[in-house]
Amino acid sequence: MTETPETRAARAVDETRLWDRLMTMASYGALANGGVNRQALSPEDVAARRRMKRWADARGFQVTTDGIGNLFVRRPGSDPEAAPVMTGSHMDSQPTGGKFDGIYGVLAGLEALCALEDAGVATRRPIEVVAWTNEEGSRFRPGVMGSSVFAGRLALDDALGVADGDGITVASALAEVRAAETDIPVRDMGGPVASYIEAHIEQGPVLEAAGKTVGVVTGIQGIRWFDVEVTGREDHAGTTPLKTRKDALKAATGIVTALGRALADPDDVVRFTVGRFEAFPGAPSTVPGRVVFTIDLRHPDGATIERLSAAIAKTSVVEAAGCEVAVRETMNAAPTIFPDEMVATVRRHAEALEISHLELPSGAGHDAMNMHGLCPTGMVFIPCENGISHNEAEAATPGDCAAGARVLTACLTDLANR
Amino acid sequence: MTETPETRAARAVDETRLWDRLMTMASYGALANGGVNRQALSPEDVAARRRMKRWADARGFQVTTDGIGNLFVRRPGSDPEAAPVMTGSHMDSQPTGGKFDGIYGVLAGLEALCALEDAGVATRRPIEVVAWTNEEGSRFRPGVMGSSVFAGRLALDDALGVADGDGITVASALAEVRAAETDIPVRDMGGPVASYIEAHIEQGPVLEAAGKTVGVVTGIQGIRWFDVEVTGREDHAGTTPLKTRKDALKAATGIVTALGRALADPDDVVRFTVGRFEAFPGAPSTVPGRVVFTIDLRHPDGATIERLSAAIAKTSVVEAAGCEVAVRETMNAAPTIFPDEMVATVRRHAEALEISHLELPSGAGHDAMNMHGLCPTGMVFIPCENGISHNEAEAATPGDCAAGARVLTACLTDLANR
Repeated sequence: MTETPETRAARAVDETRLWDRLMTMASYGALANGGVNRQALSPEDVAARRRMKRWADARGFQVTTDGIGNLFVRRPGSDPEAAPVMTGSHMDSQPTGGKFDGIYGVLAGLEALCALEDAGVATRRPIEVVAWTNEEGSRFRPGVMGSSVFAGRLALDDALGVADGDGITVASALAEVRAAETDIPVRDMGGPVASYIEAHIEQGPVLEAAGKTVGVVTGIQGIRWFDVEVTGREDHAGTTPLKTRKDALKAATGIVTALGRALADPDDVVRFTVGRFEAFPGAPSTVPGRVVFTIDLRHPDGATIERLSAAIAKTSVVEAAGCEVAVRETMNAAPTIFPDEMVATVRRHAEALEISHLELPSGAGHDAMNMHGLCPTGMVFIPCENGISHNEAEAATPGDCAAGARVLTACLTDLANR
Repeated sequence: MTETPETRAARAVDETRLWDRLMTMASYGALANGGVNRQALSPEDVAARRRMKRWADARGFQVTTDGIGNLFVRRPGSDPEAAPVMTGSHMDSQPTGGKFDGIYGVLAGLEALCALEDAGVATRRPIEVVAWTNEEGSRFRPGVMGSSVFAGRLALDDALGVADGDGITVASALAEVRAAETDIPVRDMGGPVASYIEAHIEQGPVLEAAGKTVGVVTGIQGIRWFDVEVTGREDHAGTTPLKTRKDALKAATGIVTALGRALADPDDVVRFTVGRFEAFPGAPSTVPGRVVFTIDLRHPDGATIERLSAAIAKTSVVEAAGCEVAVRETMNAAPTIFPDEMVATVRRHAEALEISHLELPSGAGHDAMNMHGLCPTGMVFIPCENGISHNEAEAATPGDCAAGARVLTACLTDLANR
């Protein structure tokens, strides 16, 4: 391995320190079965933020926040005029979440700053670790809220007005957070960013199945949601001959089966999911007169999503079997394609560090989607056990966590010297 | 048409009288949209029973009841020792029921007695019209309760102990009915019956589609219920490749589609219905880990039902697509095959009366199932509009109602002289 500032900083990543910090953070909102419930702007979230502040203070990093509660930890660069390179993710979790989703990217970023300190490597640009507010969207909808406001894609006032299930607004919850953080200065919203790179667990099984340690993320796949409503006619299950029925369930199951064939992908890149499926009236001896089901369609390529969406609409009608079929699009998020140079940067440093790697798109959405519109953006994935996420059973190994942090550290060192 | 006692009595059936009585009964529990809600042993049911008593009194028929509240109207025969021929059906309705289900058979029976009176036709055996208690099973489960107790298939005490959704028992509801019927003697339960013949709306579209006025019912098809549980694994819809999923919904829809093929019947006699279908957890972006659905299978032939049930179990497992599949039988009622001579009797009198007819099995269950174990039993169907039943929109024509009553009257006259 050639000695460079990047490899020197990366080798200073401390596997034990990173793992211990992950386990410490997992104690804020810990669930009995090993999972974590740390909702955005909750007391558990505040506790995690206080811990982050103390770790940053111990190394002399500057901690700031902004109007939506994004938390920044900054290691200065040698050029006081240079825009920062940013990294990070989120500290909030799903209600029955795990120990790694989000928090891994924040602590891997902090580990990078500590490794740079320990290795005595200076950078021209400052590096900032950010913990974006409310990525999950479990308590306050929509998710990726903090990065949306930072990137100017969501108005601050609109975000502050959002209420949770108990009627508590983001503004009100944020006021309580601020009261616990009088030692953290509030900075202006947004600002120039040189580049952004986010570390995250894969939340899928691809890396594990391929036996690779790091994922070089090429982008975030596009997502479309559809509601399909099939309307037939309720009939008596005993007396009505099958030929005279308009059986909404028979039609709907036929549509789902046909869609599975129409969207079949030998490369296994298409993600097609029917997650909700309801039949009415739902009595064993009544032929269902109405079925409603959802389609979640994802693909990294925009043109492919367009083509598959058209196939969904067509197949649903062709397979209607005498029923009425209505297909309604309820969400449409275009694919994110990270710049070649950011993808190449991650790949290059994984290679230099002799860490096995694989290029793949992200199946899930991330704050990086918002940063992509603002500056050159990339992501680094590490494997998670059995691909399980959004689940108390979510797991990653200390070695993989450290390997991802090493690649991240090398990338940040590189980007902060451009 | 040859003049016989049967045709003479049948011609005395009064279409207007029968229709007016149907409309009068429909007023007890009338719903705003034309339907009827007359639950078993409710105040509406009591009102209908009082009306029945007055009509019977007006013609000098004897009215009795028994320990489960079955209501009997008897026209004596010439032989005081002879067991009665019975006819009838039920007066209770579904909560959102129609004007004809059940009550038609009771009033067609009463019309037969009146026609015999009007025509001056005596019979050797007495003829009894019965209104069986709680056929629908909507308020008190199980249904066909009164005929089950009469036929000795359900212990009286077990039936009396059944409670409705408000905790009111059959015994308690029956005590209130009895308080309104101090003028109706209580007779012993059961007793010898020479034969039983029940008139009913078809509750299906077969007669209407064939343009026939009367259905010569060959039996009541067997019914089996199954619960099918498909267990896979919950996964993230965005991150999990389709090849690594255990998608319970994909498996379940594939099973339903395959079952449709496996049970396909060119003669359209098989009744196969998936009425309830639930996917868990039911979130659009989560691959369902569990699906539960019901199967309602009916056929008039016992051996065929056995064969189809085996096919259901086999196909469900073959199409499991990597999931676990459990098939559990939750109901098994064998087919009822009416004796040839009873079927021939109905057919013969329909022919003699020059009323168009068709042989068909009953798709729905009836009190006749219980009487079948006790004495030679048959049924007469009339068409209902679009095959709709258990629905406020249930409809039949005055002409068809009268035609069915004519065939019934001829059959009763014939049977009561054997």
